Amino acid sequence: MAVVVMKFGGTSVANVERIRNVARHVKREVDGGNKVAVVVSAMAGATNQLVAWCKEAAELHDAREYDAVVATGEQVTAGLLAIVLQSMGLNARSWTGWQVPIKTSAAHGSARILDIPGDDLRARIDSGEIAVITGFQGIEADSERIATLGRGGSDTSAVAVAIAVNADVCDIYTDVDGVYTSDPRIVPKARRLPKIAYEEMLEMASLGSKVLQTRSVELGMVYKVRTRVLSSFAAPSAMKPFNVFDIEDIGTIVCDEDEIVEQQVVSGIAYAKDEAKVTLLKVDDKPGVAARIFGPLAEANINVDMIVQNITPDGRQTDMTFTVQAAELARALDVLKKAKKDIGHFDVKSSADVVKVSVIGVGMRSHAGVAAKMFETLSEKGINIHAISTSEIKISVLIDAAYAELAVRSLHSAYGLDSD
Amino acid sequence: MAVVVMKFGGTSVANVERIRNVARHVKREVDGGNKVAVVVSAMAGATNQLVAWCKEAAELHDAREYDAVVATGEQVTAGLLAIVLQSMGLNARSWTGWQVPIKTSAAHGSARILDIPGDDLRARIDSGEIAVITGFQGIEADSERIATLGRGGSDTSAVAVAIAVNADVCDIYTDVDGVYTSDPRIVPKARRLPKIAYEEMLEMASLGSKVLQTRSVELGMVYKVRTRVLSSFAAPSAMKPFNVFDIEDIGTIVCDEDEIVEQQVVSGIAYAKDEAKVTLLKVDDKPGVAARIFGPLAEANINVDMIVQNITPDGRQTDMTFTVQAAELARALDVLKKAKKDIGHFDVKSSADVVKVSVIGVGMRSHAGVAAKMFETLSEKGINIHAISTSEIKISVLIDAAYAELAVRSLHSAYGLDSD
Repeated sequence: MAVVVMKFGGTSVANVERIRNVARHVKREVDGGNKVAVVVSAMAGATNQLVAWCKEAAELHDAREYDAVVATGEQVTAGLLAIVLQSMGLNARSWTGWQVPIKTSAAHGSARILDIPGDDLRARIDSGEIAVITGFQGIEADSERIATLGRGGSDTSAVAVAIAVNADVCDIYTDVDGVYTSDPRIVPKARRLPKIAYEEMLEMASLGSKVLQTRSVELGMVYKVRTRVLSSFAAPSAMKPFNVFDIEDIGTIVCDEDEIVEQQVVSGIAYAKDEAKVTLLKVDDKPGVAARIFGPLAEANINVDMIVQNITPDGRQTDMTFTVQAAELARALDVLKKAKKDIGHFDVKSSADVVKVSVIGVGMRSHAGVAAKMFETLSEKGINIHAISTSEIKISVLIDAAYAELAVRSLHSAYGLDSD
Repeated sequence: MAVVVMKFGGTSVANVERIRNVARHVKREVDGGNKVAVVVSAMAGATNQLVAWCKEAAELHDAREYDAVVATGEQVTAGLLAIVLQSMGLNARSWTGWQVPIKTSAAHGSARILDIPGDDLRARIDSGEIAVITGFQGIEADSERIATLGRGGSDTSAVAVAIAVNADVCDIYTDVDGVYTSDPRIVPKARRLPKIAYEEMLEMASLGSKVLQTRSVELGMVYKVRTRVLSSFAAPSAMKPFNVFDIEDIGTIVCDEDEIVEQQVVSGIAYAKDEAKVTLLKVDDKPGVAARIFGPLAEANINVDMIVQNITPDGRQTDMTFTVQAAELARALDVLKKAKKDIGHFDVKSSADVVKVSVIGVGMRSHAGVAAKMFETLSEKGINIHAISTSEIKISVLIDAAYAELAVRSLHSAYGLDSD
């Protein structure tokens, strides 16, 4: 017997027929002797409709009221799934965020989960009651008002529930059947990874492979929650109930890197298209100039990613290149214009026609030459690199968008990731 | 300054544009110096969609899960209205049933309101905050699960909130501009009643003039809540803010009969089409036979309305006529068939082709001849009466459905209710 948390996203519960399919997945686990908590998203499209109504009501709206409105989506799904499970003869009940309670911070619209008192919930689950819990939301402990976690928050809800009830596994059912070495839409030879380390998954998630929400991976990593990514569209009967001693080779397990026996040097190639490059030319190279550039951007809540600085030949001036989200490029340029009197002279160039390509793998900690192979591969294809940034387990380069597919496919082959 | 509870039904909040119109009604009251609580229904159609999903999930569903699903409709409206009010510069916040809390019985799907702790709410309203409260729902005090009040329950929520905060008036905004002497669709000369007594309104409501939910009128009567029926589609600016010393002649005020100075003998003519007649012929007239007929019907939860019993000429047998809801006729006949061995011999006749027409007025308590005039009027038109039932303030007759309009119009004229 294991305690299994199962999370189903919006497309998996898009209508009552699909909710019935979800119920069959749940029934398989129960029939197999497992104890189950289910975390559900809103029916696909529901949240968009609710958000659209809020926007129509007022462009700038109270985040607390927005939360009260959009949180209804998951409540509908949870009730409907409980009804379907009961109709299959299973013992189930729905729980809203405030009923559990899932206690959150006061940052309405993007709240963080602070605490889930799990003892009562675990006792109910142990007694055989299936807990169907609304994802994406909780209750702000002080004000007792509904708070939502932001888009994709249901993944985080699921991992947090898994921690609270000390579950053996957190199964995230999605519309893909696992995490791949790269995006299969552009790399036909991409392979499903049977296992991936939390840190690699974090880099993948933050780099555009949005299989899991970043926060959920962080939480899973800190609390060592074994997380599986599975397809909800697979036939429920074709899968085996979860067994901690005999885990099926299905989906992708996100786990500690120690658990991954045959670790590759590189696990995957990710890319992010929504980047924009800003270059400030001929900035006076005096102390504090970086702070005067990036301070105002941070204040305006604009996230700066890669930063590269070059000195001009005479050493008196510097060129500064950095990237921001493409959607924030206009606002970033506006902030820089207003900060010009503090920064001093500069010319500015910008482009949204760039893409960030990254090579990821915990194995590169102990292997030299990973970066060299990346530069060599891109150079062979005549691809120019605008900027480079590295972390312990990742190397990212910024290149022209036109070369994105070529770069990803070439790197996928170069690191031996292609399927046979 | 007065404390005003304003209730808006589903058609009044059917989309964001209409919610904006509702907000203008609220703003008029606030600008006029009143303190306001608003009770809202779900957007028209929303509840039907939610109910349909529950039915699709399982024909027989857990009422607690049904409640969790359908209660989301009002939560959406309350949040959206709060957003719109804020965008007009007003101080507003939404409240769900569990936040207030509106404490209810455990009869999920048709729960009764047991208590609303009103002090905090009143203090917030007094401070100038507009409380936007979800109608139709509350929280079951013991289990802390969401409970709904049944269709039309938002009227009851509004009256209950008015009691809890000791409001000066409970304004029910609907899609009609008041209560009429009869249904204007079949009686073109029907007049709007400026005032109607609670007891008359109760009879009207239970007789098919579904302007207000019966339970809301009962509550209003017990706690003497001055209730107005108003149109939400009237231009918000064309109405005056509520003033307890100078109430506009608009809509209909439901109040104590003592408040109605020029009380008519008859206030209105109501009719109910969804009746069916059952006649049991030649039943043995022995003690306890009525109990053996109506006992099983009551156990089957079938509501019996009018009952008429005649003795056959020989005095040994009796004919029994009664009415049930047309939708329950088949089930009633089935119950009687199964009870035949207890009841003994009878022949049965039934018809759903009947209508109940009622003359209503608190004035008939002190006036003789009201019934005689009714029978005379119907007789003049050649309309046969199948059954008669009377209460202190109401006389009802069962007639063939074909004569419904003729009967209602004739009675409307006979009692002097026609407009000039």
